[in-house]
Amino acid sequence: MSRKDSRGFLELRPVSIECDAVPHAEGSCLIQEGQTRVLVTASVENRVPSFLRDSGEGWVTAEYGMLPRATHERSPREAAKGKQSGRTLEIQRLIGRALRSVTDRTLFPDITITLDCDVLVADAGTRCASITGAYVALVLALSRLAAEGKIAKNPLKEPVAAVSIGLVPAEPGSPGIVALDLDYAEDSTALVDLNLIGTASRRLVEIQGTAEREPFGQDVLMEMLSAGWSGLERLFALQRAVLKGRVPEGFTV
Amino acid sequence: MSRKDSRGFLELRPVSIECDAVPHAEGSCLIQEGQTRVLVTASVENRVPSFLRDSGEGWVTAEYGMLPRATHERSPREAAKGKQSGRTLEIQRLIGRALRSVTDRTLFPDITITLDCDVLVADAGTRCASITGAYVALVLALSRLAAEGKIAKNPLKEPVAAVSIGLVPAEPGSPGIVALDLDYAEDSTALVDLNLIGTASRRLVEIQGTAEREPFGQDVLMEMLSAGWSGLERLFALQRAVLKGRVPEGFTV
Amino acid sequence: MSRKDSRGFLELRPVSIECDAVPHAEGSCLIQEGQTRVLVTASVENRVPSFLRDSGEGWVTAEYGMLPRATHERSPREAAKGKQSGRTLEIQRLIGRALRSVTDRTLFPDITITLDCDVLVADAGTRCASITGAYVALVLALSRLAAEGKIAKNPLKEPVAAVSIGLVPAEPGSPGIVALDLDYAEDSTALVDLNLIGTASRRLVEIQGTAEREPFGQDVLMEMLSAGWSGLERLFALQRAVLKGRVPEGFTV
Amino acid sequence: MSRKDSRGFLELRPVSIECDAVPHAEGSCLIQEGQTRVLVTASVENRVPSFLRDSGEGWVTAEYGMLPRATHERSPREAAKGKQSGRTLEIQRLIGRALRSVTDRTLFPDITITLDCDVLVADAGTRCASITGAYVALVLALSRLAAEGKIAKNPLKEPVAAVSIGLVPAEPGSPGIVALDLDYAEDSTALVDLNLIGTASRRLVEIQGTAEREPFGQDVLMEMLSAGWSGLERLFALQRAVLKGRVPEGFTV
Amino acid sequence: MSRKDSRGFLELRPVSIECDAVPHAEGSCLIQEGQTRVLVTASVENRVPSFLRDSGEGWVTAEYGMLPRATHERSPREAAKGKQSGRTLEIQRLIGRALRSVTDRTLFPDITITLDCDVLVADAGTRCASITGAYVALVLALSRLAAEGKIAKNPLKEPVAAVSIGLVPAEPGSPGIVALDLDYAEDSTALVDLNLIGTASRRLVEIQGTAEREPFGQDVLMEMLSAGWSGLERLFALQRAVLKGRVPEGFTV
Amino acid sequence: MSRKDSRGFLELRPVSIECDAVPHAEGSCLIQEGQTRVLVTASVENRVPSFLRDSGEGWVTAEYGMLPRATHERSPREAAKGKQSGRTLEIQRLIGRALRSVTDRTLFPDITITLDCDVLVADAGTRCASITGAYVALVLALSRLAAEGKIAKNPLKEPVAAVSIGLVPAEPGSPGIVALDLDYAEDSTALVDLNLIGTASRRLVEIQGTAEREPFGQDVLMEMLSAGWSGLERLFALQRAVLKGRVPEGFTV
Repeated sequence: MSRKDSRGFLELRPVSIECDAVPHAEGSCLIQEGQTRVLVTASVENRVPSFLRDSGEGWVTAEYGMLPRATHERSPREAAKGKQSGRTLEIQRLIGRALRSVTDRTLFPDITITLDCDVLVADAGTRCASITGAYVALVLALSRLAAEGKIAKNPLKEPVAAVSIGLVPAEPGSPGIVALDLDYAEDSTALVDLNLIGTASRRLVEIQGTAEREPFGQDVLMEMLSAGWSGLERLFALQRAVLKGRVPEGFTV
Repeated sequence: MSRKDSRGFLELRPVSIECDAVPHAEGSCLIQEGQTRVLVTASVENRVPSFLRDSGEGWVTAEYGMLPRATHERSPREAAKGKQSGRTLEIQRLIGRALRSVTDRTLFPDITITLDCDVLVADAGTRCASITGAYVALVLALSRLAAEGKIAKNPLKEPVAAVSIGLVPAEPGSPGIVALDLDYAEDSTALVDLNLIGTASRRLVEIQGTAEREPFGQDVLMEMLSAGWSGLERLFALQRAVLKGRVPEGFTV
Repeated sequence: MSRKDSRGFLELRPVSIECDAVPHAEGSCLIQEGQTRVLVTASVENRVPSFLRDSGEGWVTAEYGMLPRATHERSPREAAKGKQSGRTLEIQRLIGRALRSVTDRTLFPDITITLDCDVLVADAGTRCASITGAYVALVLALSRLAAEGKIAKNPLKEPVAAVSIGLVPAEPGSPGIVALDLDYAEDSTALVDLNLIGTASRRLVEIQGTAEREPFGQDVLMEMLSAGWSGLERLFALQRAVLKGRVPEGFTV
Repeated sequence: MSRKDSRGFLELRPVSIECDAVPHAEGSCLIQEGQTRVLVTASVENRVPSFLRDSGEGWVTAEYGMLPRATHERSPREAAKGKQSGRTLEIQRLIGRALRSVTDRTLFPDITITLDCDVLVADAGTRCASITGAYVALVLALSRLAAEGKIAKNPLKEPVAAVSIGLVPAEPGSPGIVALDLDYAEDSTALVDLNLIGTASRRLVEIQGTAEREPFGQDVLMEMLSAGWSGLERLFALQRAVLKGRVPEGFTV
Repeated sequence: MSRKDSRGFLELRPVSIECDAVPHAEGSCLIQEGQTRVLVTASVENRVPSFLRDSGEGWVTAEYGMLPRATHERSPREAAKGKQSGRTLEIQRLIGRALRSVTDRTLFPDITITLDCDVLVADAGTRCASITGAYVALVLALSRLAAEGKIAKNPLKEPVAAVSIGLVPAEPGSPGIVALDLDYAEDSTALVDLNLIGTASRRLVEIQGTAEREPFGQDVLMEMLSAGWSGLERLFALQRAVLKGRVPEGFTV
Repeated sequence: MSRKDSRGFLELRPVSIECDAVPHAEGSCLIQEGQTRVLVTASVENRVPSFLRDSGEGWVTAEYGMLPRATHERSPREAAKGKQSGRTLEIQRLIGRALRSVTDRTLFPDITITLDCDVLVADAGTRCASITGAYVALVLALSRLAAEGKIAKNPLKEPVAAVSIGLVPAEPGSPGIVALDLDYAEDSTALVDLNLIGTASRRLVEIQGTAEREPFGQDVLMEMLSAGWSGLERLFALQRAVLKGRVPEGFTV
C-alpha cells in the first residue's frame, strides 16, 4: 500500500513558506503545502473591539476566504452571495482562537492584529496551512512593532502550528490506515478526519476529530494524535527556519 | 474541593427528557440538563436537497437557535439582525453531522428530517443537550414513519449522545480538575473545554477540545475522555428509558 | 350548531398562565390558550433608543417569533432566511403599541423593557395570547424593579389583554356565526377576523378587523365587539389571579 | 374650533385623481389628497405565485414605497438600507388585501396584477390614498384586459376606498373632536387614529383603529365610523366620475 | 433616413424642467425629456460623512432609483430585493461626481446636500436627465441657503448638464449614423453609446463611451462629441431659462 | 520634471504576465504591473444565465475582488460586510463588457466563462490590469476547449487590453502633464483620470474619463488618448508573447 504521490503515510506534502509576500502588510507570507496555497497577511490597527476597550488587552482575530476558483469546480463568491458560509465562519473562528492561545495580549493594549488567510489554491488542509502561516505572519508583524519601539516584549509564548490527519480506507475488510496531511482526493474518501493544533512544547491548543463515515475507536484517535505530533515537529522546524534572522534580538520564536 | 451545587466532579447535572413536547411535530422532546432547557422537534418532509436528488438517500439536518432571553443578559434576536452567528452555524452543522453518523439514509430515500433545537434556557451545555435530545426526537419521528409503513427497517444504527467535559481551576498552583457537564459559571472560567459525541458502542463520532486559557497536555485529554464516556453511559441509559414502549417492535434503539 | 371541541360560540378555549417560566428574565410567563403556547419574557436594560435619549421617558418594545415547528407544517426559520416576515414585524409592532398604551413611561426614564414573545406551539390566536401574556411579564418585571427600589410608583395604568373574534360559516345560505377565540381550523375558514385589544376599564386600545372573504356589515362588527368584551373580562380575571401575591403592596394591577 | 385650513371637521381635503399618469402601465393614476400625492400603477403579468399555480385563480398584490424626500425630513432610501421597514410591509399587505376583497380572481386565472403605490409627497393619509387610487388603476387595467378580449367579465364586485379618521385634541379638559382625513400636523398630535376601508355597498373591508395616547371608548369608535362613511361616499363619487367613459360597456364600476 | 419621431439626428427630444415639484424639499424639479420623466429633489442636512468631519468641506451626493413600472415591463423593486443593482450604484456615483465637479464645497462646510433622482417614466437617457435636473435642484437649494443667510457666496462654478449620443444602424453595409438623445427603441439597437457630461465653458466633466456591438474608431468618437456639445448648449439654455428670477442677486448660474 | 520611479511620462510600469498560475482553472494568469498584482482565472461551466437559454449564445462574465490587505490600509472584507461595493460592481461590469466585445459568443452556445479577477496587491490600475490579464486567461480557456474538440473555431475576434492615463499636476500655474499608467501616489493626486480599453485594430471598446478636480478641455482628452494607444500597443505585444505556443494552430490571437 502506498499513496498516489508515493509519500509515506506519515509524511507531509512538500511545504514552504515565503515571507513578506504582500508589500503593504505589517506581516505576511505565502504558505504552500502540496498544491494548497494560502496568502496570509497580518494587519495592525490602533483600535480594539468594544468589549476590550479599557481592558488593557489587545486583540488578535482572523478572517478566512477562498478565491472562487481555488477549488476544482468554481464556487460562488461569498461577497456576491452576500454572506459568508458556516464553514468560513467556523474556520476563521478556529484560526483566531489558535493564535490567541499563544499570545499575551496584555503586551499590546489598544492594538488589533487581523490575520487574513486567503486561499489561492485549495487541495485540502487549508485551515491547517492558514494557522501555520498565520503564526509566521503574526511574528513578522510583532517584530515590526518591536523594531518600531511600539511593544517592549515579545507577546508570543511559543510557536503554534496545525496539521490534518486522516483515516483512509485500506483494502476491503481492513480497518483503514492513519495518514498525515491529506490532499483533496484522500480527504474526500477519508473515514475519519482530525485537525490537530499544537504548540512547540507538545501541548494541545485544539483538537477536532470527526467520523466522516463510521464512528471510530479511541485507539484510532491515539494513533492519529501520534502521527499529528510528528507532522507538527516538522512544521515548527520550518517556521523557525524561515523566521531566522527576521526577528529582533531576544525575540525568540 | 467540591462543586457549588455539591455534585461530584464526575457527576452529570439532573437530566430529564420529556417526549412529544410539541403536538404538530413527527417527533419531539424537551430535554433539561440542570437549568439548560432545549426544545427539539424532528420534522419530516418529502423532499431532499438538490445534491441528493436521485441518489437513493434521504437527508438529516439540524437547525439551532436560542431565544433572546435564554441567556443571563438578553441577546439580540438573530432573525432581527438578519443573520445567524458563526457560533449558531457551527453548532447546527455539528448536530447534523452527529445524527447522520448513526443513520442509514438509504432506508428513507427522498425524505428530509430536520431537527430544530431551540434553547429556551441556556446554562451551558446546549449543543450537547441538543444532540442527546435530537437522537430521541429522531427515533420518535422514524418510529412514526415505520408505524405508517413508510419505512421498512430501522435506519438508526446505534444511539448517539454528547457531553461536555472541562478542566476547571483548582487552588492556585494546582493544575486544574477534570469536571463533567459544566454549568455556565464553571464553563466561563474553565481552562479547557471538550465536547465528546459518542455512540453506545463506545466509539467516537466527534471530539472537539479547546484550550481556553493555556494549551494542555495529552494526559489531560485522556482524563477528560474517560470522564466523558462515563457521562455518556448515563445519557444512553436515559434515552433507552424514555424511548421504551414508544418504538415499534423490532426497532431497537 | 356547535364547535368541534363542544365549546359554546362565546367561550374561550382553556387558558392558563404560568409565571416565572424562564429563570434569567426579570419577568416571564408561559401562556397557553387551547394548544397555542407562547413563552413571554420581559427584559430590563439600562438604555433607551436614541430618539428617547434625554427625554425623561423609558421605552417598552416587543419582539415576536415562532419556532419553525410551532406550525402544522414546518416553516423556514426567519434567522436562516435572513429577514423577519411582514407578518412578524406587523405583530411585534402591535404588541409593543398595546403595552405602551397602558404604561406611564416617565416613571422609568432611561430603561428599556423588551417583551419577547416566542410561539412554541401555534394553533391560532398567537398575537392575542402574546399581548395577554406580555402584560403579565411586564407587571412581574416592573414589580421586581419596584422591589429593588429602582422605580417608585407603578407605571401601569390598567390591565390590557387581547382576544380574537371571528365570523365563522354557518349552514349554506345563512350569514355566519360570531365565535370567540378561534382555533386554527376555525380561523382558516373564517369569513371575518377581528382582533380586539382592550383595557380593564372597557376602553379600546386597538381594533383590527378584516374581511377574509366578503365585506361585512357594521352590525356584524357590533356583535363581534360585544363577544370580544366578554372574552376580555375573563382574561383580566385570569391575569389578576396569577399576579395575586406577586406584586409589591400598593402596586395594584 | 376650526381646522387650520378652515375645513370643517367632517370634510375631506381637496382630492383629485388623474388617470393614465404613466404611459407604460396597463392602468395608472396620480391621486392627490391635499398635499399628499401617490402615483399608482397596475401591472399585468402572465404568471401567478407558486401557491396559486393550477388553482384557477389569478392574483392581486401591492407594493408600497415612499420617495426619500416625500417627507418633511429626508428619510433613508429603503433600497439603500437593504430592507423594507415594518411599516412599509404592513401597508402593502393592507393594500393588497383591500383590493382582493372586491375582486373575483377566478375570472383572470394565471394572471398577476401588481399595484405599485409610490408616494411622491407625504402629508398623512398615504395608505388610504393608495387604496382609493389603486382601485382606479385596477379598473383601468382590467378594462384594458377586457378590451383586448383577455377577460370575459368584469371581475370587480364593487368599488373600494379608504379614509382616515382621527380624534384630535380640543381645548384642555375636553375629550377630543372627531375629524376626517387628517393632514400630517393633525395626525402627529391625534389621540386616536382609525383607517376605514369600505365598499360602495357600505360594508367594511378592514378597520384599524389605534389609541395613540389613551385608550378610547366604544362611543368614540361609533362616531369615527360614521364620519368615515361620509368621507367614503365622496371618494366613491370621485372614482365613478374619473372612470366614466373609460371602461368597456357593461363593465359598471 | 430619418428618426421615427421625425426628429433630425442632431435634435434633442422635447425637454422641459418644472421647478419646485416637491413642496418639502429645499430644491426640486421634474425634468422631462421625451417620455422620460425624472423627479429630482435636493435635501440639505446639517451633517457630513465621517471622512469629511473637521475638513472644512461640505458634501454633495446622489441617489438614483426607478419606480418599478417606469419601464415597459415591470421591474422588481430594489427595496424588496434587498439591494441596489450594480447599474443603480454606478449611475448614482456618476451623478454625485458630476455635481461635485462644479461645486466649491468649502463654501458650505458641515452640510450635506443629497440629490435624489427618481425615475417616474423611463424611455432612455435617465442618467443624463438626472444630472441636468440635479443641477437645477442644487441651484435652488443653494439659493435658499443663500436667502437664509447660511452661505455667503454661490458655491457653483458653472452649469453642468449631460446628454447621450449614439451610433445607430443605417442601411446594411453602411457604418451607422451619429444621433443625439436616443429614446429606448433607438438605444436598444445602438452600436455605440456615449454619455457626455460637460460644463457651460465647454469642458468635459465625464465621458463614458461603450461599444455595444463592435469596437469603434476614434473618428466616430469625435463626431459623437461634436453632436454632444450641440445638445449640451441647448440644455444649458433651458437651465438658465427656468432658473431666471429664482436665484438671489449676484448668484449667476 | 520626471516621475518618482524615473519612468518617462509615456512609459508603462514594468509589466509581466505569468500563465497558468492556478492549477484547477481552465485558463489563468497572474498579471503584475508595477506593484499591482492581479490573479485572473477563467472558469468554464456548462450553463448559461436564463436570459440566454435557447439563444444559441454562450456567456462571458467577470467578477472582481480585492483581498482585504491588498491596499495600504486594510479594507473590510466584502464577504463579511455582506455586500459588494458600488466600485466593485462597476468594475466587474466593465471587465465583462470589455471581454464580450471581442468574443463571438455564438461559437460556444450553452457555455458560460467567468473571469475572476482578484487583486492580491493594489497600487492603482487594477481594473486595467484585470482586463489585460482576463484576455490572456480567456484565450487559454478557449484554447483548451478547442483542444478538447468542444469548440470548432476561435471565438476571439481580436485582442483587447486596457490602460490608464492621467493628467498629473505640474508646477503651480502650469496646466498638468499627461502621464501613462499611474501608480497609487500619482493616481491620488491626478487632475483627470481616463481608462482606455481598445483592441489591436486600434478601435475603442470603452472610454471612461473623469475630471477629478476640474473639468478639462477636449485637447487634453486627445492627448490622453494618444498616450493611451501607445501604452496599449506594448500590452498587445506582451499578450502575444506570453500566449505564443500556448494556442492551437490556426487560433491566432
